[in-house]
Amino acid sequence: MTTTERSPYKVIGTRPIRPDGVEKVTGKAQYGADVRLPGMIHGRLLRSPHAHAYIRRIDTSAAEKMPGVLAVLTHHDFPAARDEMQELGEGAVNLKELSDNILASDKVLYRGHAVAAVAALSPHQAEEALKKIVVEYEVLPPVLDVMDAMRPDAPLLSETRFTREMTGQKSEKPSNIASHLQFKSGDVEAAFAEADAIVERDYTTKMVHQGYIEPHNATASWNADGTITIWTSTQGPFVVRAQVAEVLRHPISTIRVIPMEIGGGFGGKIPIYLDPVAALLSKKSGRPVKVLMSRTDVFEASGPTSGTHIALKVGVKDGVITAVKADLAYEAGAYAGSPVGAGALMMLSPYNIENFQIDGYDVVVNKPKTSAYRAPGAPAAAFAIESALDELAHKIGADPLELRKKNTAREGTRRVDGTAFPRIGHEECVDAALNSAHYRSPIEGPNRGRGVASGYWINAGMQSSVVAAVNTDGTVNLIEGSTDIGGTRASLAMQLAETLGLPFDVIRPTVADTDSVGYNDVTGGSRTTFASGMAVHEAGLDIQRQMRERAAKGWGVAADAVSYADGRVTLKTDSETKELSFAEIAKKAASTGGPIVGRGSLTARGAGAAYATHIVDVEVDPDTGKVTILRYTAVQDVGTAIHPSYVEGQIQGGVVQGIGWALNEEYYYDDDGRMANSSYLDYRMPTALDVPMIDAVLVEVPNPGHPYGVRGVGEVPIVPPLAAIANAIADATGHRFTSLPMSPRRVVEELHGLS
Amino acid sequence: MTTTERSPYKVIGTRPIRPDGVEKVTGKAQYGADVRLPGMIHGRLLRSPHAHAYIRRIDTSAAEKMPGVLAVLTHHDFPAARDEMQELGEGAVNLKELSDNILASDKVLYRGHAVAAVAALSPHQAEEALKKIVVEYEVLPPVLDVMDAMRPDAPLLSETRFTREMTGQKSEKPSNIASHLQFKSGDVEAAFAEADAIVERDYTTKMVHQGYIEPHNATASWNADGTITIWTSTQGPFVVRAQVAEVLRHPISTIRVIPMEIGGGFGGKIPIYLDPVAALLSKKSGRPVKVLMSRTDVFEASGPTSGTHIALKVGVKDGVITAVKADLAYEAGAYAGSPVGAGALMMLSPYNIENFQIDGYDVVVNKPKTSAYRAPGAPAAAFAIESALDELAHKIGADPLELRKKNTAREGTRRVDGTAFPRIGHEECVDAALNSAHYRSPIEGPNRGRGVASGYWINAGMQSSVVAAVNTDGTVNLIEGSTDIGGTRASLAMQLAETLGLPFDVIRPTVADTDSVGYNDVTGGSRTTFASGMAVHEAGLDIQRQMRERAAKGWGVAADAVSYADGRVTLKTDSETKELSFAEIAKKAASTGGPIVGRGSLTARGAGAAYATHIVDVEVDPDTGKVTILRYTAVQDVGTAIHPSYVEGQIQGGVVQGIGWALNEEYYYDDDGRMANSSYLDYRMPTALDVPMIDAVLVEVPNPGHPYGVRGVGEVPIVPPLAAIANAIADATGHRFTSLPMSPRRVVEELHGLS
Repeated sequence: MTTTERSPYKVIGTRPIRPDGVEKVTGKAQYGADVRLPGMIHGRLLRSPHAHAYIRRIDTSAAEKMPGVLAVLTHHDFPAARDEMQELGEGAVNLKELSDNILASDKVLYRGHAVAAVAALSPHQAEEALKKIVVEYEVLPPVLDVMDAMRPDAPLLSETRFTREMTGQKSEKPSNIASHLQFKSGDVEAAFAEADAIVERDYTTKMVHQGYIEPHNATASWNADGTITIWTSTQGPFVVRAQVAEVLRHPISTIRVIPMEIGGGFGGKIPIYLDPVAALLSKKSGRPVKVLMSRTDVFEASGPTSGTHIALKVGVKDGVITAVKADLAYEAGAYAGSPVGAGALMMLSPYNIENFQIDGYDVVVNKPKTSAYRAPGAPAAAFAIESALDELAHKIGADPLELRKKNTAREGTRRVDGTAFPRIGHEECVDAALNSAHYRSPIEGPNRGRGVASGYWINAGMQSSVVAAVNTDGTVNLIEGSTDIGGTRASLAMQLAETLGLPFDVIRPTVADTDSVGYNDVTGGSRTTFASGMAVHEAGLDIQRQMRERAAKGWGVAADAVSYADGRVTLKTDSETKELSFAEIAKKAASTGGPIVGRGSLTARGAGAAYATHIVDVEVDPDTGKVTILRYTAVQDVGTAIHPSYVEGQIQGGVVQGIGWALNEEYYYDDDGRMANSSYLDYRMPTALDVPMIDAVLVEVPNPGHPYGVRGVGEVPIVPPLAAIANAIADATGHRFTSLPMSPRRVVEELHGLS
Repeated sequence: MTTTERSPYKVIGTRPIRPDGVEKVTGKAQYGADVRLPGMIHGRLLRSPHAHAYIRRIDTSAAEKMPGVLAVLTHHDFPAARDEMQELGEGAVNLKELSDNILASDKVLYRGHAVAAVAALSPHQAEEALKKIVVEYEVLPPVLDVMDAMRPDAPLLSETRFTREMTGQKSEKPSNIASHLQFKSGDVEAAFAEADAIVERDYTTKMVHQGYIEPHNATASWNADGTITIWTSTQGPFVVRAQVAEVLRHPISTIRVIPMEIGGGFGGKIPIYLDPVAALLSKKSGRPVKVLMSRTDVFEASGPTSGTHIALKVGVKDGVITAVKADLAYEAGAYAGSPVGAGALMMLSPYNIENFQIDGYDVVVNKPKTSAYRAPGAPAAAFAIESALDELAHKIGADPLELRKKNTAREGTRRVDGTAFPRIGHEECVDAALNSAHYRSPIEGPNRGRGVASGYWINAGMQSSVVAAVNTDGTVNLIEGSTDIGGTRASLAMQLAETLGLPFDVIRPTVADTDSVGYNDVTGGSRTTFASGMAVHEAGLDIQRQMRERAAKGWGVAADAVSYADGRVTLKTDSETKELSFAEIAKKAASTGGPIVGRGSLTARGAGAAYATHIVDVEVDPDTGKVTILRYTAVQDVGTAIHPSYVEGQIQGGVVQGIGWALNEEYYYDDDGRMANSSYLDYRMPTALDVPMIDAVLVEVPNPGHPYGVRGVGEVPIVPPLAAIANAIADATGHRFTSLPMSPRRVVEELHGLS
């Protein structure tokens, strides 16, 4: 459903089949595991059985003698890493920690931490050889929970980590708290003192995984001249290039990263794990080497998102949210870098709140280093604030959506960092939710309840670079460098078609490798349709200009005497109208100056904020604790929906991931730091049988910072579900759950006072 | 050896290691046969055992039932081909003949002509299945020699082929002569009547093969949505795309051709043979299909160059060549399209001759359809004219080089088609030969002799399109679409380095596929370093402009206030000089507007003519007929030598191919049209043991049509050797050989009067 007026566009807003669709559903698309090269051998990693231990010795001599083994690797084979931060395309990265996370040096910091690697003629020979590697560990007590890790007496993951304040100041004593940040405004305590109603609670969420279908993989070929080719599944081949270059201290220009099709990422396919290992194994063996993770490897050793603890106090006076105090503690995993900053920055963004103090803590624990997961940091923060607002609404007898509408952020409202919002659409989302058939319908029956929640995601811009080459038959090859995860080949091709006034299917998009297109930042931050779309628009205008010039030259007039519209160049004089179609100009390219190639290359500014408001009805079985999602409506300001089906798909996917996070998913650890549920059998993600059809309501408040009004749409849909479902369960049961997941066990335990 | 003055260039003229060198010598480079895809199966072709026959029936039913067979194909699976000419990137092509040559329809026209194809799980299963295909032939008498084929009573390859005149007029009766062309000027008969000396002879050459090491190959994947991906060894992926599109009547925009590394081409890797077969087998089987030729397939069924018969009469008066009459008859093979036009156009180009009549005949015979072979058409023509000039020089007592110098073409001289030459370097070549240590040295000893000859090649321009993307570390990815056969990654990267004032090794060239770069014509006609070099230069200027704009913006001045030179942008005012290096501007790209990407896209005009003059000393063993090449000096006007080593390599390679052609190579047929020597054991190409070091003398007369003076260099070196060696043998033996090859057998037979 789209609430927009009649569209001014011809291609934008339609729903063509994605160019890569048939190839993917028929199994022809090439993923990383499909790569096969002459002479290719197989790499496998030895992983730590301990969550926290010193490595005292690694003896690989027996493994090196095993049949079929051509290379064995430990961290000693990596060049010494500098202990400094560097911008490597996914924000600042500590180079030593980046390297240590790939192959542990002096210490293992989580179970599954890689300590050595073998390359052999067959995967089985590699696995057998791993068993012959002797690692002497000095086992240390692990710390597995964010609150435990913050205690002064907690085991330290690193003796040289000190808490860094925003001022740059560092703590006197080493700590598991890597950093502390704060956003503050007004007089919070005074506002609480005057409040009509206050809610104060602690909220916790567990570490959860993105759950992409395709495990990490990397195939590398290190040539004798030092050039390296890497085939991999990644959201950002240029980031892989930058990070591999840094870990191996190898010039980026000698590294070519070929992005294969990607079987899901959700943020988790931005960091590198296997790529430098495959590369060094290739260097040592002289062969191309392919390395694959198992599902257990993916759970134990790739980056999930943080478990969190949020202590929140919210005050309301006369229906206005006047005060918020929040302490956010996020697990970073083994190395610093949780998304607590994003959580702290964004949690209040749907609202206009005068007095607040938000403190954020980035905390290391003996679990895998977290990585981005769809709207990283925001869902847990929204779980807290949106749960509290729901409770406050009930306290003051307000409709929970009306409370949100009354306090909504609008154009000009300042975010907690002081930035004023441009035109945004939160209020429109709340209005659409209020007016929706879903919200107007009654919710009836025992153990049933309804919840709502809003969410915000900032969206990113960053760099994109595309080339569009006109074929002589009037089709156009669009050459871009953004991995296509959610249909961006389509959404970019549609924008080029719109710019050129051509039908969609004459645009043929291709995702090129790092040697074959200008620099492109990751497919992440919901940036690709927005930022690469701007580059595509620029390339389209470039083609328009060249076509006008060529037509004008042929007609013997100045280029500015002719116009380009609807796929035609037109010359209008008092006496006549001359026209040439795109295809006619394309056909004559050879004789009018050669191939026509457009270019767009930019650092995109003006990313539009995304807002969403969700409504969910649930039924709770008080005997089994099972929560059934009866109905789910996700309202979202999508800016302009380029391809509404894929926008809806993004919303539906994000909601379903949120449902899993809310109800079932969690990293379940034993006391020694062993993940007990590291398979899809035990790690319970929602299946199609677990969820109803998610109704997506597209509100279109065009982003003024984009030629077609595009906002990113992929991340914000995962922000409201955690709270919306908790609020619905509270409505159904009268019990407020503040810890996720609200799994059958927890529901039964809490409802029956067993926990 | 380079005769140039001190170079104005920093990178051009140096000899760096080619970017693809290490990968190739270490076996890591990926050729077509290396492609392996999941589910890939293997295709093989059934070929005709007859040189000329009607196909009455093909029964594939038994083959279809063979184990492992997933698809069987005959010409009936191709869409009906239109019997018309179309421009498909390698000149005009008859669409029906293009299709029929790939899989025969009603008639087979040469032994080895493909009639059916099978795809099976293994190559062996495919080969076994081929044996089960029943083809009923009605065998016809073949015609194997160009002169035989021109006889009125010759068996006709096609009842519907009529001789086409340049006027478009057609012959009344069908004929094996596909076309006749003529260049004529002055009064030839009058000039002969006044001549001091005349030579009149018939010259013949045999069909010879390019002899590239890598056989033809194609792997194709036809997806359910009709998109086709083809991995192949080709000189022109865009031509493959165009031709496959035409044969399959499939839109070019749905076909992606990925050029693999190429193991030699020399013109023979321009046409398509296997690509549409692999594609249709893939469509039928639903699997990716790889098809490879054997060496025998390559000889029997890919395109060699024409056997020729040239009747030539040349007259001289007062040392001036006053009259030429030439009849050139070239074998086209099974379908029209010999290079007789090029031979006729170019044979007199080294000279300024007033009166001439040149007639050319394109003649079909029951042998494989010829394709381009290095300077196609020119070597046989040069063999004739340069042999005759040698004989004339001896007749009139002139030094053979002095005769050539006296008659040399210069700037303003008209080619036989009336085109006036711009600045050319034939006279400089003759002078360099005259002054060479080789020519000044005596040639002594029994059975030894010296010969000289000149040659000309026109060189091509055509379309090129490149993109150059600046990396943040100050390196540049050069993305081009020209298959790299002779070192063009290096020669293009060098031109970009020169344009940008950067060292060679910061430029990283990549050859992209047809979906990933603008249109590029074939690597052929010695055009790539010239034409793609112009595009590279344009892209470099584009980067210069962007860097000037960004630096100027940072300094707060207009872009035209700053200059770019030597890899730096400089602002000079009365009071100060500001500078930013290329790397500094590259590093800041993200914050100054995004990735910096340059573009060059053009139809190159101004290709420079190439001239060469060769000197060769031989020793002939009168008992065995073996001819030993004692010394060989090849002088060539190379314009500007971008990479002198690769220019020398091109010259040496061309000369050695010429030596093979002159002395040993030939398609040897029995009376039934069976090639008797279709292996490298029997088809005698020169090895390193057969030839001395070839001395290449580079004369540099810059081409005024190119920013760096580049002329094509790859083809002309094969033009003079045939005649130069024949002239040397005549000098050594006193016997003039007018038929190639001058193999031991022929030499013995002619010297001893046995033939």
